[in-house]
Amino acid sequence: MSIITLTTDFGLKDHFVGALKGKIITEHPQAQIFDISHNVDLFNISEASYIISAAYNSFPKQTVHIIGVDSERTPENKHIAMQWNDHYFICADNGILSILTQKIVPQKIVEINVHDRFPEGTSDMEVFVKVACHLSKGGVMSVIGREISSLKTINELQAIVASDFSSIKGAVVYIDHFGNCVTNISQKMIQDTAKGRSFEVKFGTKTIRSIHKSYSDFKVTDKFTLKDFEGERLALFNEADFLEIAIYKSNPSTVGSATSLLGLKFRDTVTIQFT
Amino acid sequence: MSIITLTTDFGLKDHFVGALKGKIITEHPQAQIFDISHNVDLFNISEASYIISAAYNSFPKQTVHIIGVDSERTPENKHIAMQWNDHYFICADNGILSILTQKIVPQKIVEINVHDRFPEGTSDMEVFVKVACHLSKGGVMSVIGREISSLKTINELQAIVASDFSSIKGAVVYIDHFGNCVTNISQKMIQDTAKGRSFEVKFGTKTIRSIHKSYSDFKVTDKFTLKDFEGERLALFNEADFLEIAIYKSNPSTVGSATSLLGLKFRDTVTIQFT
Amino acid sequence: MSIITLTTDFGLKDHFVGALKGKIITEHPQAQIFDISHNVDLFNISEASYIISAAYNSFPKQTVHIIGVDSERTPENKHIAMQWNDHYFICADNGILSILTQKIVPQKIVEINVHDRFPEGTSDMEVFVKVACHLSKGGVMSVIGREISSLKTINELQAIVASDFSSIKGAVVYIDHFGNCVTNISQKMIQDTAKGRSFEVKFGTKTIRSIHKSYSDFKVTDKFTLKDFEGERLALFNEADFLEIAIYKSNPSTVGSATSLLGLKFRDTVTIQFT
Repeated sequence: MSIITLTTDFGLKDHFVGALKGKIITEHPQAQIFDISHNVDLFNISEASYIISAAYNSFPKQTVHIIGVDSERTPENKHIAMQWNDHYFICADNGILSILTQKIVPQKIVEINVHDRFPEGTSDMEVFVKVACHLSKGGVMSVIGREISSLKTINELQAIVASDFSSIKGAVVYIDHFGNCVTNISQKMIQDTAKGRSFEVKFGTKTIRSIHKSYSDFKVTDKFTLKDFEGERLALFNEADFLEIAIYKSNPSTVGSATSLLGLKFRDTVTIQFT
Repeated sequence: MSIITLTTDFGLKDHFVGALKGKIITEHPQAQIFDISHNVDLFNISEASYIISAAYNSFPKQTVHIIGVDSERTPENKHIAMQWNDHYFICADNGILSILTQKIVPQKIVEINVHDRFPEGTSDMEVFVKVACHLSKGGVMSVIGREISSLKTINELQAIVASDFSSIKGAVVYIDHFGNCVTNISQKMIQDTAKGRSFEVKFGTKTIRSIHKSYSDFKVTDKFTLKDFEGERLALFNEADFLEIAIYKSNPSTVGSATSLLGLKFRDTVTIQFT
Repeated sequence: MSIITLTTDFGLKDHFVGALKGKIITEHPQAQIFDISHNVDLFNISEASYIISAAYNSFPKQTVHIIGVDSERTPENKHIAMQWNDHYFICADNGILSILTQKIVPQKIVEINVHDRFPEGTSDMEVFVKVACHLSKGGVMSVIGREISSLKTINELQAIVASDFSSIKGAVVYIDHFGNCVTNISQKMIQDTAKGRSFEVKFGTKTIRSIHKSYSDFKVTDKFTLKDFEGERLALFNEADFLEIAIYKSNPSTVGSATSLLGLKFRDTVTIQFT
């Protein structure tokens, strides 16, 4: 299998995404191309970082992930390729891989330095396509760049444990399609810090005291059916293993959602208070 | 061919759809995956029911259709797989297959009961992926669930013939991208009830007396070109064979559409009056 | 390779695009289908013309491009297939291929005349699918239509050189996802007319005196980093080789974009003044 995924802020109206796929399939006719998202908020590195970290591990090992967000090559943002957990990632070195590299140390990182081998006017995405197809065909990383030892990181994506271990202070890093608020606090971080203690989830003036196993994990009785719980707030660990504040059966365009009903916005603080 | 289609309310910004495809291709590398829609209005079973009924028969027999709308498994909504008209459908038993099962009796329905064979934390969609890949590879239904004889139905999706056969009372069940209003009244239902009589289409204070063969089916003369008919209302049977109220060359974001110009909304009544 | 691309105004919510792909894969199981755009503004031939002209050449020779915008067959708009620059295009003869045919003469054009070979009720898109699969399998054009010598053109898509060669008068023909304003003035047209003269780009009360090589082509110094140039206006030749007016790091939904900040709208005049 030769799988290449795409995560960009290009949108789906313009010709950009179609042209990108055309270039890949021209260069590597056996490639299978999958969209992760093309609707990342423009130049929003935090969003892109969350989306790729939540999606990558559904794909097989050796998948090549192209990230086209803030990808222009500048003196400040080099182009890089990273081998990590047996997947490959190609992007600009702008912090976009921070969530991944916080979890596991990369196997290998190269600064891509083959730009001058291509005709003048070759675009940034065309270089990404060349590199992605090279790696997807089994090519080695040393051919496309020189090895480097570290990447830029975005600190705002990192939750912080209090020095007395009484709490964890995180933030909302992503609002999803259902208006649910995803935090940067992972289940593992809570478990490692809790050491058996129980905890509450606090944000603004609100407190949530229990964690749901699923969105519909309410106590159904003879008196109350699930329908009676629609609109209730809840917290759970989502598929990407991050704490998420949600509203049961939310709809941002009609009844409202966690972000609209609870007033919880991108970058707002969420605290885990151990008790 | 191993074709799997996807119809969800996941939207295209989050990682959900990309991750879903990654899981399918990991489980079944030969699968060909096609999107039907990921922009179903959140938890809107009527919309999903219409969309899948309008799309399925463009795909080859043996195609497996995953429907991820209101798909959480609850005591009220079991997970099911249905063989119907030589296609397979996997979803929660929430009424979403009503339009299909009104037309033809299912060949086989099973309540999926293999959830406990997977690791704890396996999500609803991961179970759908396992079941879809099993069926797509030619696996039998009895392996993944126990046979059941009927499904939940949504009555609001069913148009009703008057007891004296003088009329059919239906409703708008879908507003499409062009702002056209699709009803739940099929051409077959009208023909079966008409028995040769002519009929009028009535909604609000408006009446349409003839059915177009195509959107542009206007009488072009020396005096009037097609351009002169832009903005005219019309009724026709759409590709899914349902009666649709449309505006010729509508555009919801500029000149307006059937729903905005005629004031015809989701769930509004449309009547066929035989004369 | 049997590649078929799709450019339509069908949107991504309805069943239309999924059904279209199902019909193609049923007719031609080896086809690889790529979306260029399904979010063309409804019936907007200029937008579709720009999008297909910007995307086609990223795909391999022999690719078949289906354009489903204003595609209903009427006495005024015949269905056509065009072989051009070793690609195939299938659409209604409504001017949608104007940008392409301004550049290079078509190799062959046929008016599709096989509609009556299909069952009654066969839709316009079903005919396009049949024709596309025929061509994609290597079938000849003479089988599906009679040769014609010319196509309708849209004049508004053509920039005009002043009779004294002192200027070129063009217009904004497309606003992209980043709010950048794409004009119909090509780099080649400017070079052919300039004959070594320098030039300024003028629109409204504004003038841009230099052309960027890339979006980030600003003079970074000890005093100013790239971050200090965010929000600056610029002009460059985009990947499709057309002059584009842009804002560095624009975002239409937050800080603004070229169209919102500079007041430059679809169809507004942009002038190249030679000096």
